[in-house]
Amino acid sequence: MLSTMQDVPLTVSRILRHGSTVHGKSRITTWTGEGEPHRRTFAEVGERAAQLAHALRDELGVARDDRVATLMWNNAEHVEAYFAIPAMGSILHTLNLRLPAEQLVWIVHHAADRVVLVNGSLLPLLAPLLPKMETVEHVVVVGPGDTSLLAGCRPTVHEYEALIAGRPTTYDWPELDERTAAAMCYTSGTTGDPKGVVYSHRSIYLHSMQVNMGESMGLTDADTTLPVVPMFHVNAWGLPHAVFMTGVNLLMPDRFLQPAPLAEMIEAERPTHSAAVPTIWQGLLAELAAKPRDISSLKHVTIGGSACPPSLMRTFEEQHGVKVVHAWGMTETSPLGTVAHPPAGLSDEELWSYRISQGRFPASVEARLIGPDGSEMPWDGESAGELEVRGPWIAGAYYGGADADPIRPEDKFSPDGWLRTGDVGVITPDGYLTLTDRAKDVIKSGGEWISSVELENHLMGHPAVAEAAVVAVPDERWGERPLATVVLKEDAGEVSYEELRDFLAGKVARWQVPERWTLIPAVPKTSVGKFDKKVLRAQYAKGELDVTKL
Amino acid sequence: MLSTMQDVPLTVSRILRHGSTVHGKSRITTWTGEGEPHRRTFAEVGERAAQLAHALRDELGVARDDRVATLMWNNAEHVEAYFAIPAMGSILHTLNLRLPAEQLVWIVHHAADRVVLVNGSLLPLLAPLLPKMETVEHVVVVGPGDTSLLAGCRPTVHEYEALIAGRPTTYDWPELDERTAAAMCYTSGTTGDPKGVVYSHRSIYLHSMQVNMGESMGLTDADTTLPVVPMFHVNAWGLPHAVFMTGVNLLMPDRFLQPAPLAEMIEAERPTHSAAVPTIWQGLLAELAAKPRDISSLKHVTIGGSACPPSLMRTFEEQHGVKVVHAWGMTETSPLGTVAHPPAGLSDEELWSYRISQGRFPASVEARLIGPDGSEMPWDGESAGELEVRGPWIAGAYYGGADADPIRPEDKFSPDGWLRTGDVGVITPDGYLTLTDRAKDVIKSGGEWISSVELENHLMGHPAVAEAAVVAVPDERWGERPLATVVLKEDAGEVSYEELRDFLAGKVARWQVPERWTLIPAVPKTSVGKFDKKVLRAQYAKGELDVTKL
Repeated sequence: MLSTMQDVPLTVSRILRHGSTVHGKSRITTWTGEGEPHRRTFAEVGERAAQLAHALRDELGVARDDRVATLMWNNAEHVEAYFAIPAMGSILHTLNLRLPAEQLVWIVHHAADRVVLVNGSLLPLLAPLLPKMETVEHVVVVGPGDTSLLAGCRPTVHEYEALIAGRPTTYDWPELDERTAAAMCYTSGTTGDPKGVVYSHRSIYLHSMQVNMGESMGLTDADTTLPVVPMFHVNAWGLPHAVFMTGVNLLMPDRFLQPAPLAEMIEAERPTHSAAVPTIWQGLLAELAAKPRDISSLKHVTIGGSACPPSLMRTFEEQHGVKVVHAWGMTETSPLGTVAHPPAGLSDEELWSYRISQGRFPASVEARLIGPDGSEMPWDGESAGELEVRGPWIAGAYYGGADADPIRPEDKFSPDGWLRTGDVGVITPDGYLTLTDRAKDVIKSGGEWISSVELENHLMGHPAVAEAAVVAVPDERWGERPLATVVLKEDAGEVSYEELRDFLAGKVARWQVPERWTLIPAVPKTSVGKFDKKVLRAQYAKGELDVTKL
Repeated sequence: MLSTMQDVPLTVSRILRHGSTVHGKSRITTWTGEGEPHRRTFAEVGERAAQLAHALRDELGVARDDRVATLMWNNAEHVEAYFAIPAMGSILHTLNLRLPAEQLVWIVHHAADRVVLVNGSLLPLLAPLLPKMETVEHVVVVGPGDTSLLAGCRPTVHEYEALIAGRPTTYDWPELDERTAAAMCYTSGTTGDPKGVVYSHRSIYLHSMQVNMGESMGLTDADTTLPVVPMFHVNAWGLPHAVFMTGVNLLMPDRFLQPAPLAEMIEAERPTHSAAVPTIWQGLLAELAAKPRDISSLKHVTIGGSACPPSLMRTFEEQHGVKVVHAWGMTETSPLGTVAHPPAGLSDEELWSYRISQGRFPASVEARLIGPDGSEMPWDGESAGELEVRGPWIAGAYYGGADADPIRPEDKFSPDGWLRTGDVGVITPDGYLTLTDRAKDVIKSGGEWISSVELENHLMGHPAVAEAAVVAVPDERWGERPLATVVLKEDAGEVSYEELRDFLAGKVARWQVPERWTLIPAVPKTSVGKFDKKVLRAQYAKGELDVTKL
């Protein structure tokens, strides 16, 4: 039996219409680095989004489903693009300006972007790549920059303000099917080509509601949020769309993501909330220690992107009265997957075990753990498995390219359509996730898993050890076994493998203790400073490591 | 272009699964009137909901789309029915036990309810009606009651606990289309037959998310809410479904809706939030004045159902530290239509003008005002029109009956599908609604509207006037004009119509002042004590009133 409810699609234009009317007085403040920040109301953003849509359609010929890319920082114009492009039925494609040049070119080609909106300050990055970006017909330069860099380039060059000026400030947004593509974002996997995730109007709408729920961020128009997380990282965690739903004011850092200007803008503009990766906050704390600032307006900050050290959370809270809330997600999860508000009624100590977890799943994100033998593991806080998730804002495939079917790599999507996150962890009976390893770093030994991260953490607790990386190596009897690669401190003196082995034996199950050991001068690192274990595995395979078997 | 997001339906079973696992420790406490309240965890409710579904399907033969009615108070078993019936693909039909007997019989017949779940305490109400409820095959008695009243009745009688005992505590909930009917509720209009609103899984899910948003109630598992609003009134304003999404604890009053037990349960169980109509709070304040209780746990209460006197809001806040938040909705709007959290950054005086409004629309509820000439009125806080709303949890039709098409009366739904609320009001530029009249009580004079409520309020401010009702009467020149019917105070002495007219003339526009006046001994009232203006209009039409035209 069908209900008698109205059939109203959940679309980005609905959020825009609401935000720019009911919350028309709410503001986006963009930091300019010098002088007064730039301020614009939601009502103005709504009018300018309409002007942008008219310009894109009438002047640049952008049609439904056309991809329009942005290579921009966090600022009011980027928010205008966030709304105008999906609302008119086209697809917003945010480009990650930190990707290697070849990947950027590959991604623009794969998405077949027809237009690129670029901040003037990023022209030195874009200009040399434009000759290779063959699908791009128009470049729209937003804000000041050296446009001489574009001299002689093939695409037509426009200046944003001149392009939108004088156009109608309202737009008859089309009524779209809520499952229509609205925005896309490519993941930068360490192996293979980048993969495109295509968000729908529905997924953005529902995700925005979740961000605004009390159990997530729960902000209102009495709040101002500072998204330090870039708008080219999973839609700035959904904040730009979410704030238009509830009138939360935005403080935008533009390109000023360094500790000193962040401290300055927090003191001056008094945001109540912020969102960023841990390294940003670590830098901010150091800055504040060197040059104290009043950041008392901040009530809580959401931290995600990588695990946050508990010491950072405690320092922030004790020294600055800022509550740090852990969250987990990925490009494929829009990104809100978990938020670590602890359950009510716990002692301080119990609270911390929840707060340092990745957090609790909301109702729209179903989760399961798949163990080493492919069976589902219980939520007992102890049984580890690869996390798989399902929900209306979770990817079920990757973009296959124009006119191509979506692709569903087996290692990323289960046969029944759940996303394989590639993360290994445990879940408590009350739904709190703790991630321990990347699935590819787990050692599969005799049908059981050994956590390389756990072994590394224990080893690095030994007074003589500077760094340690544990990788899986093939083993005839057990399938895989751990190889411990250890960097000793300069002043460590003599330390035997047996001593390190016995040190571990007191901390993990006997069968998890590595037999294979090697000393190395340094752990190879990726460009972002993470352990590059595939280098170690390759060195082992080629026999380049001097391994002792105990 | 389609997105690559998973296509996951928004269903009641998803809310149930989440609430009974991730929030399995949250609790429903049901007041029993004597001794310890009854306590049950969300995990237990989830298990018992599964048992109920097994019993309904296997024992009572309830199939997909079958209607299962409840005639119950607010208690844990009613919550079990709230989840089990929709989640299994059947339709929950809550019966309003305050309706006249004939209407109850009519509604059960129209919905073709096959089963009625009834609280034992309500058997005296149900038993005499059962012979006329021909579609009902099974009666399930929940809790203690005089079952001898059912002796010899046609339907099979079951006892709830015996019926569900021993059945499996899990159920393989079907994956339903989110637009499937989940629950229904009939409105009790003052004219014509009651009209059935059929909620979908989608509408319940989205409404639950909205209830949990910071701008609405924004509760978390640190909260306990006391829904005094009955579960047979628009799903207790959506609270039972919403709390399972976020783990908010429920304090259920069962049938103890009187001021004394409410005060007692608030003191004993310390809820942080409550929801009820104004008369309940008025009674509670009087009770607390007579017998003080500690209600300091209450942080805020949501008031709706009818306009709340500002004095009540102030008293609650000043004497008890409880913030009263106004909200507006109706059966057709699920019901969340507006919530009156004021905008940020206002002075205390400005705040109150927002707080006494009906409130602000959320992003999912679009609104427009249709003026006397059928055109859309501006949101300027002054131009009045009939409120029409659109959104994913707003009705677009009424239930037509089994195998019948839904019905869309012209006076309730616009040609483009919006709900005509029948309420007249104004909307501020920032989206706050103030209702002034029912559309049928507005006087349409020369293409403009005159608010009967405003005239009445002014007249009742005159020292000699006890009551005043203003109704529209036909007028050759203006279409309609106001007729003022006035009840003088016993000690009023001589008061002329001219004096009353001049009194009004200083307060409203000249053209709004009535020419027609009559003194009556009392204003006719409906069964719930409201002015019954249709009686006055009929008396005027029949020439039964002694009208003076000035």
